[in-house]
Amino acid sequence: MPHTIALVGGTGPEGRGLATRFALAGHRVRIGSRDAARGVEAARDLAASLGRGDITGADNAAAVADADLVVVVVPYSAHRATLEGLRDALAGKIVVDAVVPVMFDRGPRPVDVPAGSATEEAAEILAASRVIGAFHNLAAEVLLDPTANVDADVLVTGGDAEAKQAVIALANEIAGVTAVDAGPLRFSRFVEGITILLIGINGRYKAHTGVRIAGLGGH
Amino acid sequence: MPHTIALVGGTGPEGRGLATRFALAGHRVRIGSRDAARGVEAARDLAASLGRGDITGADNAAAVADADLVVVVVPYSAHRATLEGLRDALAGKIVVDAVVPVMFDRGPRPVDVPAGSATEEAAEILAASRVIGAFHNLAAEVLLDPTANVDADVLVTGGDAEAKQAVIALANEIAGVTAVDAGPLRFSRFVEGITILLIGINGRYKAHTGVRIAGLGGH
Repeated sequence: MPHTIALVGGTGPEGRGLATRFALAGHRVRIGSRDAARGVEAARDLAASLGRGDITGADNAAAVADADLVVVVVPYSAHRATLEGLRDALAGKIVVDAVVPVMFDRGPRPVDVPAGSATEEAAEILAASRVIGAFHNLAAEVLLDPTANVDADVLVTGGDAEAKQAVIALANEIAGVTAVDAGPLRFSRFVEGITILLIGINGRYKAHTGVRIAGLGGH
Repeated sequence: MPHTIALVGGTGPEGRGLATRFALAGHRVRIGSRDAARGVEAARDLAASLGRGDITGADNAAAVADADLVVVVVPYSAHRATLEGLRDALAGKIVVDAVVPVMFDRGPRPVDVPAGSATEEAAEILAASRVIGAFHNLAAEVLLDPTANVDADVLVTGGDAEAKQAVIALANEIAGVTAVDAGPLRFSRFVEGITILLIGINGRYKAHTGVRIAGLGGH
């Protein structure tokens, strides 16, 4: 059953990359931005380059209004304010946090999050939403190429079993991806940390890496 | 060139697993323990089951005395006291910290380390040693089977380029393993965190998992 998926802060490379893959899988996609015009423009460009799919843009509040599943891809610096502003609009919905608390100062560095992780912070702010962590570790450059196979697993955290299964199913629709249940929300810090590791490895090896969990067999 | 490798706290599954692989690669192996008799016994059992290799046991201080490369595999609860007790004996040597700051309370949980990671803590304590982080993420059950291919990468952290290259070369000798330069010591917390994630996944999927960095090509 297709979702209507809103990407909050979706005009950046990660948001447009995920929008590409969600549209290819047949979902309706709403690209949200602080600035409605930028959301509309990003959606129009993406729809034109893909030549298919139901992709529209709006400001973040309008984008999430008719979505049943929302993916948050704002920079960490905008995380708290964005979620507080959308709290009521996100009540009852599945909210997937893909945000990594990272800053750059001669390389990537973790930002201290009192809640333990961005995803746990989202769960604190959005007490009436079904918060799941996922999609932190996928290279935007690969997602943006609709012909590229994504050589990476998606690690999914959360305590709402039904919402988690919906996100696992969504991730598994991305060509090449295997979704792995990475545990409850308190494991999100480790998943977010992997992205900081991968950013460093990408710089060192001039690559667009992902992470795979080996040894799971054909789960 | 073969190393003489001491495993500090090497009588547990991880220590005996690494000892197995280092011996298979032709290195001299010294299994250290708080209790010399236990180190001797573990080495004797391992040498007997492998049927080859230069493997002996001793107390930790004697084990490191003639080693040029030392791998620390004590439980985190013994980390600081063990390293403080060996500080002089480890001066000038390559010391590989493989310790994960984890405790168990309805599942694995991180232990807060003021230095940021066990490896950074080791570097603080062992200011005269060449401290590298590696070997955190390998399943002991797989290491202990000398016929099993290890389906995992080894993420190596550290600032001493020559020592790091020696550890990368050592890790690459383990059948199936690819060593990846995971950055300076400050990235160790993310590598250690992956183990906590894998412990959770192993329980959930009844598997012995490892981590792979995908997208590096044939580096």
